[in-house]
Amino acid sequence: MNPTNPLVNAMFTDLYQITMVYAHWKNKRHKDPAVFELFFRKHPFQGEYTIFAGLDECLKYTQTFKFAEEDIEYLQTKVPALSHCDAGFFDYLRELDGSELQIYALKEGSLAFPKVPLASIVGPLGIAQLIETAFLNLINFPSLVATNACRMVVAARSRGGSYDSKQKPILAEFGLRRAQGPDGGMTATKYSVLGGFDATSNVLAGQLFSVPIIGTNAHAYVQAYHSLEEVQHLQLSTNSNCGPSPNLNVPFQHINILSQVSKYRRQLSNEDPLFASTNNGELASFISYAVAFPDSFACIVDTYDTIQSGLRNFILVSFVLDDLGYIPKGIRLDSGDLASLSFQASTLCSKLFQQYKNRTFLNQLSIIASNDLNETALHELNTKPHSINIYGIGTNLVTCQEQPALGCVYKLVQLNHIPRMKLSNEMEKILIPGYKIPYRLYDKHDRPIIDLLTCEKDADENALPTKGKRILCRHPFQSQQRIYVTPSRVDKLHHLVFDKKNGLIIPPMDLLQTRQVSYSCFYSC
Amino acid sequence: MNPTNPLVNAMFTDLYQITMVYAHWKNKRHKDPAVFELFFRKHPFQGEYTIFAGLDECLKYTQTFKFAEEDIEYLQTKVPALSHCDAGFFDYLRELDGSELQIYALKEGSLAFPKVPLASIVGPLGIAQLIETAFLNLINFPSLVATNACRMVVAARSRGGSYDSKQKPILAEFGLRRAQGPDGGMTATKYSVLGGFDATSNVLAGQLFSVPIIGTNAHAYVQAYHSLEEVQHLQLSTNSNCGPSPNLNVPFQHINILSQVSKYRRQLSNEDPLFASTNNGELASFISYAVAFPDSFACIVDTYDTIQSGLRNFILVSFVLDDLGYIPKGIRLDSGDLASLSFQASTLCSKLFQQYKNRTFLNQLSIIASNDLNETALHELNTKPHSINIYGIGTNLVTCQEQPALGCVYKLVQLNHIPRMKLSNEMEKILIPGYKIPYRLYDKHDRPIIDLLTCEKDADENALPTKGKRILCRHPFQSQQRIYVTPSRVDKLHHLVFDKKNGLIIPPMDLLQTRQVSYSCFYSC
Repeated sequence: MNPTNPLVNAMFTDLYQITMVYAHWKNKRHKDPAVFELFFRKHPFQGEYTIFAGLDECLKYTQTFKFAEEDIEYLQTKVPALSHCDAGFFDYLRELDGSELQIYALKEGSLAFPKVPLASIVGPLGIAQLIETAFLNLINFPSLVATNACRMVVAARSRGGSYDSKQKPILAEFGLRRAQGPDGGMTATKYSVLGGFDATSNVLAGQLFSVPIIGTNAHAYVQAYHSLEEVQHLQLSTNSNCGPSPNLNVPFQHINILSQVSKYRRQLSNEDPLFASTNNGELASFISYAVAFPDSFACIVDTYDTIQSGLRNFILVSFVLDDLGYIPKGIRLDSGDLASLSFQASTLCSKLFQQYKNRTFLNQLSIIASNDLNETALHELNTKPHSINIYGIGTNLVTCQEQPALGCVYKLVQLNHIPRMKLSNEMEKILIPGYKIPYRLYDKHDRPIIDLLTCEKDADENALPTKGKRILCRHPFQSQQRIYVTPSRVDKLHHLVFDKKNGLIIPPMDLLQTRQVSYSCFYSC
Repeated sequence: MNPTNPLVNAMFTDLYQITMVYAHWKNKRHKDPAVFELFFRKHPFQGEYTIFAGLDECLKYTQTFKFAEEDIEYLQTKVPALSHCDAGFFDYLRELDGSELQIYALKEGSLAFPKVPLASIVGPLGIAQLIETAFLNLINFPSLVATNACRMVVAARSRGGSYDSKQKPILAEFGLRRAQGPDGGMTATKYSVLGGFDATSNVLAGQLFSVPIIGTNAHAYVQAYHSLEEVQHLQLSTNSNCGPSPNLNVPFQHINILSQVSKYRRQLSNEDPLFASTNNGELASFISYAVAFPDSFACIVDTYDTIQSGLRNFILVSFVLDDLGYIPKGIRLDSGDLASLSFQASTLCSKLFQQYKNRTFLNQLSIIASNDLNETALHELNTKPHSINIYGIGTNLVTCQEQPALGCVYKLVQLNHIPRMKLSNEMEKILIPGYKIPYRLYDKHDRPIIDLLTCEKDADENALPTKGKRILCRHPFQSQQRIYVTPSRVDKLHHLVFDKKNGLIIPPMDLLQTRQVSYSCFYSC
């Protein structure tokens, strides 16, 4: 199976990977058995967790890794840095694929912590080095955006200050236009859903990843109308699925929608004169939209004035739809004080519902909010009265404005069965040498306590964490920091996910299924 | 010609574009003549200029816009929001392409200012609406990253506090691994070069866009060696292009490189004992790398200790290469105080050069710096003595950390030849209605003074800016802000760039050529 983006192929790499592999080949080291670990040093967003994502695309990349003949030609003839390389090297590249690699990794969508390898790549030094750039690219941003999405889901469910899993607002990703390049957008959509989002506006992602897609309309639609004359001819028929409502006091199939709207406008403005002075162009646009989508009528209401005009125009058209047996769906707020406006909107609808008891849609409207939302804004909304039940989040989600890059690294930790390390003046950057196996230890309430790394060679029974057995866990750099743990459960975190030589085939990721992994691991904490 | 990323096709859009177009189709307005303008409201990075980029991909997208049969099937059968749409609409989509559109735009790579349309899209309401999302995606990030790159070029050339065009450090984009998704990376590379960068590490971008690619090696390469025994057998022959240097006092073709390195190590450590205690694994890795790349020897020197070990090991191997007629190229610094380390490195090399006058490479080494550089860091480096002449910039460049999204919008400004607008409580967000033609007015020194928008219908002679004729320019919203200008030159900023119906073919963008546009327009200011 190919990577989602056809640009992800063997050439999708940094030049120094190829120069290094040439040097290894030249020195006959390209087949030396190596272990690389891919990990990050710090959670993003000053947070305390990270969702691991991107593995699926890494595996598709490894599975299909192959230089095409034109790639070889480009490297051999067009790249000055490689112009003196022996011809035999290009034969080696010609034959090279990912089949010698074994990849061990966390489950996609699971919780990850600093320095615990997200993936360990075991295999010949040459190919294991060559895949570094693509692996980092394919994991860095997906993990970042999945974590960002998850944090927003948590924020949206935290009404009253603490997390409440019964709060289930819908979160939709709306960021395609502001994303960093075409599949900055595609990647963001895919991994927003992995991180817990419910839907997207991105049609191609809906098609490719089987994700629900949603949308209303935009200011441009509203602007396209300027007077009621433009819609005076429009007719709408009763919903054939349920017949006309009792509110419609003449029995017919087709009505002139404007005349009905005008009737309600007069009627409602008796008690609330604002109904008489709503923007006519906006009202005309809503009427025309209702004719196109009577079953799923939803409108953006802030083109002129959200409450005075937009909401009231929506209500006028909705009364007519309701008469015809359609259920109006809701409004979208895209500017201003979202909490206050949503609250004013639901208050006006509730008040009308007191008067028009049989118009149940008034009490069931969705209110979509979509203006520059981010995690902080979601938390702030929770401190105020509001009636939003769908959040459309764009720029902040897809570009991860708070921190637009995750700093995963890919480090050689073992070569020819000997651990390797890199020193640094910064303690944080010192590499923990050796091929490490990560375990997660749980307490008796099945809550995770600690992730423990053991070295491969320590794999005698005493060094391994075991259920019910006390074990000393040390901080790798600070000798004072250590803790005894008696785990009630021990999970081996790494799974063999790629072993082509031995016929291991991992099925392609089911995004919505994997999203459950992400959810469950998170909410069990 | 297809867009760079095959994912950019008719389905690459937000659902609401399709629902809106359905409503227009249903109301028979999809063919109404419309004008949309694409513009931004504020320069990114709190700056005073923006480089317009992304047009090339927009044109390829428009040129190839077409729904495939499986796309129609997906929309018709899998998208609940469209499930009640008339079948005729899908026939309309089936036939739809970009051939009815005319696109007017600024030159790619030119300077752009707030509210001045980057592009005006003229054509039937349906298709002109449908392309919004892709156009925004394909212009927002490219313009952002090109502007970011240009700002970094300016910063790198501003030694001593002011811009100096004779300062020509090389700037290379190194961010593929940290970019937002696969072509977050590809887009960043392409438009970094448009913004003025000289090279990239991205091999695929080198191949696709004919951009120079560069690279050295990484810590993993250095870590792959741990003792000199590993390289004791390695031989190197003299550079066949120029023969051995006079420094090599025995005439031979092949030398054992380690024995020569050891000789110099003893010799140099007589005066500078640190040469005796450099890291042997690192030295071994440099020797092996020199065997692979004698012509272009460059190494990362900060794996253990930059000056004490890395630099000295580089010098030891370089002496031997120099003997054999090769010219060592340089070192890469990837941590620590880059200004100070580069200065220490060049000072040590200069000192040695005083003693070894015939080793001219010591005075010509490149010093590449590549650790978390951004615009601010570049300005700070300029306030200190340093010897960096190549900058490798990754995360900050490609993700535009300072501001990861540009807020371009796409607004309906005219329909059926009548201007349209949208109100807002925020003055900044009020739309200037009508189809506007932008001009740039220059003073007698050929410096741009102001960009002036005129309405299409104002196009009588008096309202148009003309060379040598005084004209009143008003701020669109603040009546007090106005200025009389007598331009010495008037440029019409928009060019017709797409008119398929009338056979206009725009040749594909030549990236390096367009980069000159960007440069020249900027540096003429």
